[in-house]
Amino acid sequence: MWDVAVTAFHMMTPIKEPPLPTALFGTAIALFMGFRTNAAYARWWEARTLWGALINASRSLARITRSLTKGEPEDSEMRYNIILRQIAFAHSMRCQLRRQSPYEEIARVAGTEVADMAVARLNPANALLEDISGIYADAFVEGRITEIQQATVERVLIDIANAQGGMERIKNTPLPNGFRFFPNLFTRVFCVLLPIALVESLGLATPIGSTLIGLVFLAVLSIGEDLTDPFANSVHDVPLTAICRTIEIDLLQTAGLPAPEPLTPDQGVLW
Amino acid sequence: MWDVAVTAFHMMTPIKEPPLPTALFGTAIALFMGFRTNAAYARWWEARTLWGALINASRSLARITRSLTKGEPEDSEMRYNIILRQIAFAHSMRCQLRRQSPYEEIARVAGTEVADMAVARLNPANALLEDISGIYADAFVEGRITEIQQATVERVLIDIANAQGGMERIKNTPLPNGFRFFPNLFTRVFCVLLPIALVESLGLATPIGSTLIGLVFLAVLSIGEDLTDPFANSVHDVPLTAICRTIEIDLLQTAGLPAPEPLTPDQGVLW
Amino acid sequence: MWDVAVTAFHMMTPIKEPPLPTALFGTAIALFMGFRTNAAYARWWEARTLWGALINASRSLARITRSLTKGEPEDSEMRYNIILRQIAFAHSMRCQLRRQSPYEEIARVAGTEVADMAVARLNPANALLEDISGIYADAFVEGRITEIQQATVERVLIDIANAQGGMERIKNTPLPNGFRFFPNLFTRVFCVLLPIALVESLGLATPIGSTLIGLVFLAVLSIGEDLTDPFANSVHDVPLTAICRTIEIDLLQTAGLPAPEPLTPDQGVLW
Amino acid sequence: MWDVAVTAFHMMTPIKEPPLPTALFGTAIALFMGFRTNAAYARWWEARTLWGALINASRSLARITRSLTKGEPEDSEMRYNIILRQIAFAHSMRCQLRRQSPYEEIARVAGTEVADMAVARLNPANALLEDISGIYADAFVEGRITEIQQATVERVLIDIANAQGGMERIKNTPLPNGFRFFPNLFTRVFCVLLPIALVESLGLATPIGSTLIGLVFLAVLSIGEDLTDPFANSVHDVPLTAICRTIEIDLLQTAGLPAPEPLTPDQGVLW
Amino acid sequence: MWDVAVTAFHMMTPIKEPPLPTALFGTAIALFMGFRTNAAYARWWEARTLWGALINASRSLARITRSLTKGEPEDSEMRYNIILRQIAFAHSMRCQLRRQSPYEEIARVAGTEVADMAVARLNPANALLEDISGIYADAFVEGRITEIQQATVERVLIDIANAQGGMERIKNTPLPNGFRFFPNLFTRVFCVLLPIALVESLGLATPIGSTLIGLVFLAVLSIGEDLTDPFANSVHDVPLTAICRTIEIDLLQTAGLPAPEPLTPDQGVLW
Repeated sequence: MWDVAVTAFHMMTPIKEPPLPTALFGTAIALFMGFRTNAAYARWWEARTLWGALINASRSLARITRSLTKGEPEDSEMRYNIILRQIAFAHSMRCQLRRQSPYEEIARVAGTEVADMAVARLNPANALLEDISGIYADAFVEGRITEIQQATVERVLIDIANAQGGMERIKNTPLPNGFRFFPNLFTRVFCVLLPIALVESLGLATPIGSTLIGLVFLAVLSIGEDLTDPFANSVHDVPLTAICRTIEIDLLQTAGLPAPEPLTPDQGVLW
Repeated sequence: MWDVAVTAFHMMTPIKEPPLPTALFGTAIALFMGFRTNAAYARWWEARTLWGALINASRSLARITRSLTKGEPEDSEMRYNIILRQIAFAHSMRCQLRRQSPYEEIARVAGTEVADMAVARLNPANALLEDISGIYADAFVEGRITEIQQATVERVLIDIANAQGGMERIKNTPLPNGFRFFPNLFTRVFCVLLPIALVESLGLATPIGSTLIGLVFLAVLSIGEDLTDPFANSVHDVPLTAICRTIEIDLLQTAGLPAPEPLTPDQGVLW
Repeated sequence: MWDVAVTAFHMMTPIKEPPLPTALFGTAIALFMGFRTNAAYARWWEARTLWGALINASRSLARITRSLTKGEPEDSEMRYNIILRQIAFAHSMRCQLRRQSPYEEIARVAGTEVADMAVARLNPANALLEDISGIYADAFVEGRITEIQQATVERVLIDIANAQGGMERIKNTPLPNGFRFFPNLFTRVFCVLLPIALVESLGLATPIGSTLIGLVFLAVLSIGEDLTDPFANSVHDVPLTAICRTIEIDLLQTAGLPAPEPLTPDQGVLW
Repeated sequence: MWDVAVTAFHMMTPIKEPPLPTALFGTAIALFMGFRTNAAYARWWEARTLWGALINASRSLARITRSLTKGEPEDSEMRYNIILRQIAFAHSMRCQLRRQSPYEEIARVAGTEVADMAVARLNPANALLEDISGIYADAFVEGRITEIQQATVERVLIDIANAQGGMERIKNTPLPNGFRFFPNLFTRVFCVLLPIALVESLGLATPIGSTLIGLVFLAVLSIGEDLTDPFANSVHDVPLTAICRTIEIDLLQTAGLPAPEPLTPDQGVLW
Repeated sequence: MWDVAVTAFHMMTPIKEPPLPTALFGTAIALFMGFRTNAAYARWWEARTLWGALINASRSLARITRSLTKGEPEDSEMRYNIILRQIAFAHSMRCQLRRQSPYEEIARVAGTEVADMAVARLNPANALLEDISGIYADAFVEGRITEIQQATVERVLIDIANAQGGMERIKNTPLPNGFRFFPNLFTRVFCVLLPIALVESLGLATPIGSTLIGLVFLAVLSIGEDLTDPFANSVHDVPLTAICRTIEIDLLQTAGLPAPEPLTPDQGVLW
């Protein structure tokens, strides 16, 4: 943002300059940026909504699992297996989206055996989901759940797979090049030209006027850029770590296990 | 809003000032604010829609529960248990979203035992939902409902869990910082500069002109701020208390129990 | 709209007036109004879509009911009962949304007994839906339909309940105060100031110019206001009476009963 | 569009005219028109999407029907009956939306008996859907399909009914009067005034300038009008005839019957 | 984009020209283009979302297939058959959307027999889907899966059919003519007129000013055009080949078969 101030101060020594048509230029850029900001915000909000859907589906999976596996010791082991794998699924998705290795997190939650199995696949989260499905299939074959109950679970797994696919779509499909390159270019050119255009009418007040207007455009530009990649592990991200912790707590409590504390903002930022 | 009038009156003693490019500045801000207002309104309306979905799902749960539990005294007790827990769920969600303790409300509706169980969890509403699911699971194990009927109920519970997750998403994910900080800043700066820019051409009419335009911008600003957090227990909120009362009445009447009166606006505001 | 003409004619005797910054003021209002119109239109269209969903679900309920109840005289009585209650449901929703008593309409279609039962509840339409659910539950207990068929019906009833809840949401949640009060105020102020601002440059043509521009703003204003409450029983409403008639005809014909004629526009307006 | 040129040429003999505030007027109209165009485009695209949904659901119905009816000669007759009725359903919807008699098309595809039964109803397409549902109900009673399979089919029929209802909604609910009357009026007034306003500054170039701007507004106006009624059997329509042919081919091939060729554009237009 | 520079340089030898009302013209075009860009972006994003839905549904189909077919050698053959057909389905959709022959790809994945069967149909992808459905129907008749499991699979197939239909809708329904023809025309006319209008006030700086503004409009224009047809096999496309590869890897790994490497960007472009 300092380039505005810099160019503004340069203009303190103005030579006679023609008034460029900044109004038309500014309006055209504003419309363009408005569109970009809209698209970026929609991406960010959809990313958050998909993680919300994952929270919901995780809770539903845990709730249904608890309802279906009451009593027998064999069942309670199955319950733990599924809930731990689902927690591992959330952590694995987080790591995959942030381009980190999910091995450690999966191993911490569900054991190294599961982690080995998962990372052998291109998509570890998908492997965990198949594993959950497989545990239920075994339970059905052994007659511990009915086919209807298996179908109910599969429907929740489909919801989880849809949330997963949506997150990967947002991560793997950046905004088209034009939406990233042109707003950047035009806004910077605009900020450079702005003082030249204003200096004749504003005189000494030029730095103030052009800084103000330039700031508005740069603010919109930077907001749009921050929101475009909501899984970049930056300050403006969807707080994946905190969401994963929420899932972990809710599911562990459903299984009757001790749960960690929820994450609190670290210097005002929730990661 | 009075700062507009104040700055305007200050301008009654104008010194020679350069005409700032307020048109361009104002247009840029207007576009920015339009976007913010859009996003805020969408949040508010989604919040209301999610509570509407909770009303619908609560009614459906009560209707299905009534249809499935006809006759036997044991069944009517189950019916009461489920309907009271669902009412408690709505009140609990309301308190959780408004950062109030849900204990008293749950205890009032469903008894202290249920309330103790619920508040022992990080998310009391989720605990209530699991409890409902558990009651149905017991009924299935005891052969009082079929597996298909259990699946139908689970589908309604999934809808309820989705509504719950959506509300928590809106509560826990404020608009990105940029959308809260910049519109505020820019609008206030704009209102301060407006009379300076207008005073040369308007003369004595400056206060009128700048107050009018400033009011439009401040009005849009305050609307956007009011709608951004629809669960803040303020005047512009989604009327959660009234909605919870609606759920309470509908469900109690479905169960054939006496119901309270619907809430009426208190000094024009429905809470 | 005549106030425009009136203020314009007043301006035929102009005193020297400063040129108010109407361009900036008008642009700000236009953006604000555009937003309001968008929201109002979305409400109106969602209201219409929800009634369309009620038509679809009513047809599906009738179709499924007909398919499930073939042959036995007892079944044909059940078919009539359900279809008449569903028609009564549509009429009841219409009356509830227009704040009219639904008693007469329910009694006309489904008999006074059903009407008495329905109006004893806060939400008569909901009572009718529960009644339909109850009839199917009885049929299941008596073994005339299977549990799967009951589940299929319940799914349609959930769709109907969702449509009902959506309509009530739109009716009970007006646009936030700011969206109703400010556009009205600003537009009227704008129309009063417009001739003052134009009179210097336009001279005798002032009334024409200001009337034209004022008309555009007032037209947008009135469209927004008409669409905001789509169930107000006014000219611009969703034609609930005609839609209810459509449902009545379709369902009676499905049941093989004589049906009334569809409603035709009355002086160009379909109610 | 020629009225622009005409008025422009009239202006070649200009008398002294005051400069009307066309910029403000034009901006207000542009915002209004933008909104109208948005709504019209959304209607057109939703109409297309609903027909797409009908294609999808028709294919799914045919696919499921083929999977469920393998082998027995009685079953293959049932398969043909259902597929032919579904093709007739698509053609019937097309004719109903275009306000044409569907009798001939239904008779061509599914025989006169079915056509007689259908047109006896206010909504022939709905009658065909009920007939399909009835055939499946008979098959269930005769034990040729299971109740689960019947439920799967009913779910597809619900999708089809929803698509049907959406199409009827778009056909029967034009845009509110204000959106059709005012843009037309204002745009024409604007085009008439434009040369008057421009003639002083442009001189001889007035016809060029006003024609260009007028053309933009008229182009947007006519696009909006073309898209508003997407089932009007005009050039800008959703190509219903081609879509019905696609459904016919896909379904006949699924049933192993000879299929016609797909439709090709006729003079660049697909009907 | 060079025509801007060219016309700009022509303007270095300016004759006295009247100032055309470029501000109004530019604003009108900007609004029009903004709308077009919005619609084009929505098409592109929906196209990407539909392919994402296909990825999700393919994974779900593979996961369910693996869960249902555990153990028997006959079952593992069925598992391979289904997974290979689903991979072939994705490749076939890609070829069909890009107007290429899908024969080779289907043959490579699922064998020539399947490819022959598929291309004999107007819509090969649809034939593959029916084939999958048929394999499951056979398994049900032979008692290897239950009817509930068949219903679960059919639900996934309905999701796949819906994604397929959506892709075909976007491919076969270009934007209405008006949205393609007019923005192109108006933007080019605007770029030609721009230097004429600016030359008087800008003088020697005209080429710079008009090039800048023209570039903004041309950039928006070209972005809109690139996104309009997201399956055109061009640089700005949805990367279908890479997505198909992802599906292939995920499904082969689910079946325990060796999988190829994921595609990497080729000179910065993912196809």
